[in-house]
Amino acid sequence: MMKRVYNFYPGPATLPLGALETAQKELLDYKGTGMSIMELSHRSKQYAEIHEKASSLVKELMGLPDDYSVLWLQGGASTQFYMVPVNLGIQGKKMEYVHTGVWSKKAIKEAKFYGDVEIVASSEDQNFSYIPKDIVFSDKAAYAHITGNNTIYGTEFFNWPMTHTSVPLVCDMSSNIMDKVIDPKKFGVIYAGAQKNIGPAGVTLVIVREDLLQRVSENTPTMQKWKIHAEKDSLFNTCPVWAIYMCKLCLEHLQSIGGVSAIEKANRQKAKMLYDVIDGSNGFYQGHARPDSRSLMNVTFNLPTPELEAACVKEATEHDLIGLKGHRSVGGMRASIYNAMTLEGVQKLAEFLTTFKEENE
Amino acid sequence: MMKRVYNFYPGPATLPLGALETAQKELLDYKGTGMSIMELSHRSKQYAEIHEKASSLVKELMGLPDDYSVLWLQGGASTQFYMVPVNLGIQGKKMEYVHTGVWSKKAIKEAKFYGDVEIVASSEDQNFSYIPKDIVFSDKAAYAHITGNNTIYGTEFFNWPMTHTSVPLVCDMSSNIMDKVIDPKKFGVIYAGAQKNIGPAGVTLVIVREDLLQRVSENTPTMQKWKIHAEKDSLFNTCPVWAIYMCKLCLEHLQSIGGVSAIEKANRQKAKMLYDVIDGSNGFYQGHARPDSRSLMNVTFNLPTPELEAACVKEATEHDLIGLKGHRSVGGMRASIYNAMTLEGVQKLAEFLTTFKEENE
Repeated sequence: MMKRVYNFYPGPATLPLGALETAQKELLDYKGTGMSIMELSHRSKQYAEIHEKASSLVKELMGLPDDYSVLWLQGGASTQFYMVPVNLGIQGKKMEYVHTGVWSKKAIKEAKFYGDVEIVASSEDQNFSYIPKDIVFSDKAAYAHITGNNTIYGTEFFNWPMTHTSVPLVCDMSSNIMDKVIDPKKFGVIYAGAQKNIGPAGVTLVIVREDLLQRVSENTPTMQKWKIHAEKDSLFNTCPVWAIYMCKLCLEHLQSIGGVSAIEKANRQKAKMLYDVIDGSNGFYQGHARPDSRSLMNVTFNLPTPELEAACVKEATEHDLIGLKGHRSVGGMRASIYNAMTLEGVQKLAEFLTTFKEENE
Repeated sequence: MMKRVYNFYPGPATLPLGALETAQKELLDYKGTGMSIMELSHRSKQYAEIHEKASSLVKELMGLPDDYSVLWLQGGASTQFYMVPVNLGIQGKKMEYVHTGVWSKKAIKEAKFYGDVEIVASSEDQNFSYIPKDIVFSDKAAYAHITGNNTIYGTEFFNWPMTHTSVPLVCDMSSNIMDKVIDPKKFGVIYAGAQKNIGPAGVTLVIVREDLLQRVSENTPTMQKWKIHAEKDSLFNTCPVWAIYMCKLCLEHLQSIGGVSAIEKANRQKAKMLYDVIDGSNGFYQGHARPDSRSLMNVTFNLPTPELEAACVKEATEHDLIGLKGHRSVGGMRASIYNAMTLEGVQKLAEFLTTFKEENE
């Protein structure tokens, strides 16, 4: 008998059940080929169809204009932290970053290996509990970098800062890619580790406006150049076949339920359910994020004492509500409710939290 | 009804059926957790067990001394082509390479971004049909690099060149890792994309003697440093959970059938079966590799005409013998018979080739 829990892990995270079921069914013999997907050559026509479909689903679901390339790379957002300055840096120009948490700090650290970094806005003064407003990037920057959603602190950008037309906006969307409708034309580059919202760990989606592919110095190792990966359609070397296949299945699922606008509606409903419990708890649950900056993806909150927090996580686990311990930077609890988390799962969690409060306040 | 063909793809390649069956069985609900492996946090205790087991199997199967670190990275051998000079380069010292084919050429190209490369031996003069003998590396080199097996040309190192004790020998074993018993102490670094001999695409095994971890400059992006990955046990960032899990299953399979010495015996038997067909064909089949350099993993050969080669590949496919077309650099045919290819599969191919010759010579 198969068991299924409600998985609130921050990533790798819950995946659509239908996608997993298809993967299981096809695992030994992919569409009558007599081979597993994992055994298919990345140059085979069967895999080529999967690869192409995964990319076209990204384009379709996000409404990407024709002049954007979709790349499937490896190494996670952490690798993009250095590939962004490698591909977009311009000698003598500063790289401008907004600092909103642990992940932007890492992105900034890696960019500094390649030149001068300017932090144009930060929410460090209040333990990253908000998204800075009125961010002004200079028109002299090589690029402007933001972190779309801050998994650890539970804050999210809803209004994209303006940049000068010559300054591409670069966004790490690892934890909120496709969580809501966006206008892709506002971005020069979007990158995202797949393992939160669109698939399993092991592949990184990079979306680049094509004119920006030309910036990279010729004196750059081949695998570090987005340009090469774009020219070779992410098949310069052996791509992570299984991970891309899983992304395709997850994106097909997203398409089947109505695409990004439908999931945005569900995500807003899911997040509201939990924030309502927090706001209606008379202070028993304290949200970490300022209400105007609250993430749709990661709901972070504290309880009156660390003992109660530990008890709440433990009791939740006993109710098959898994992965709710907060990150050590914030403590408390965190419910990660990515695209694949069902309304039903969030409802169970909301009910559990309400009961836990009644029994423990 | 499940179909199973004989898959001679050069990589991604055939995997042990038992490993695939376990993966399929566990895919939806990993050991009663109510989650797929792909949904488990890379920091969870269930995944930690898998991760640790995969590494300890590498150590055990290869007989690694205690001072070697096992890393699970992303980006394929192509990424290691630049990570090798980043981590092992020494200012003012040459990096010495043996040039035995397409992959060594790529490795050399990437090293040149970081300093002077010396090619100390090459088999380019005879279209890479042999492994150079009497290779002499200088005692002044930063490191000495070889490609253990040349997938495209079907040649393989059986005798490891000597290096001065201060010069680590670095070997790309992507297509022959664990195909035969080796003395790991002869190597400073061994690296291998997993997708030929030990698992699926999407993870790269890197084995480093620990004193060499200290060479890297502090002024290096974090993700490029083996040292960081060693310190964090390959969990500095989200690792490719599924791919490492699959490697663990494949390595458990290898262990269950007797380990590397047993698979070496089978590999020699498999390779001999095909080379015997070639040698006994009165010139109908022409082996590309010189007999003393013949690979256990990739058997490359030509037929009298390109038309016969195409017909042979086509007819083989009709007999469920898949993936036999040679690489364009050599033409003809290539049978990749990695660890997971069964004796039975090779036998079928040998019989098919014998019959094809009789019918077409």
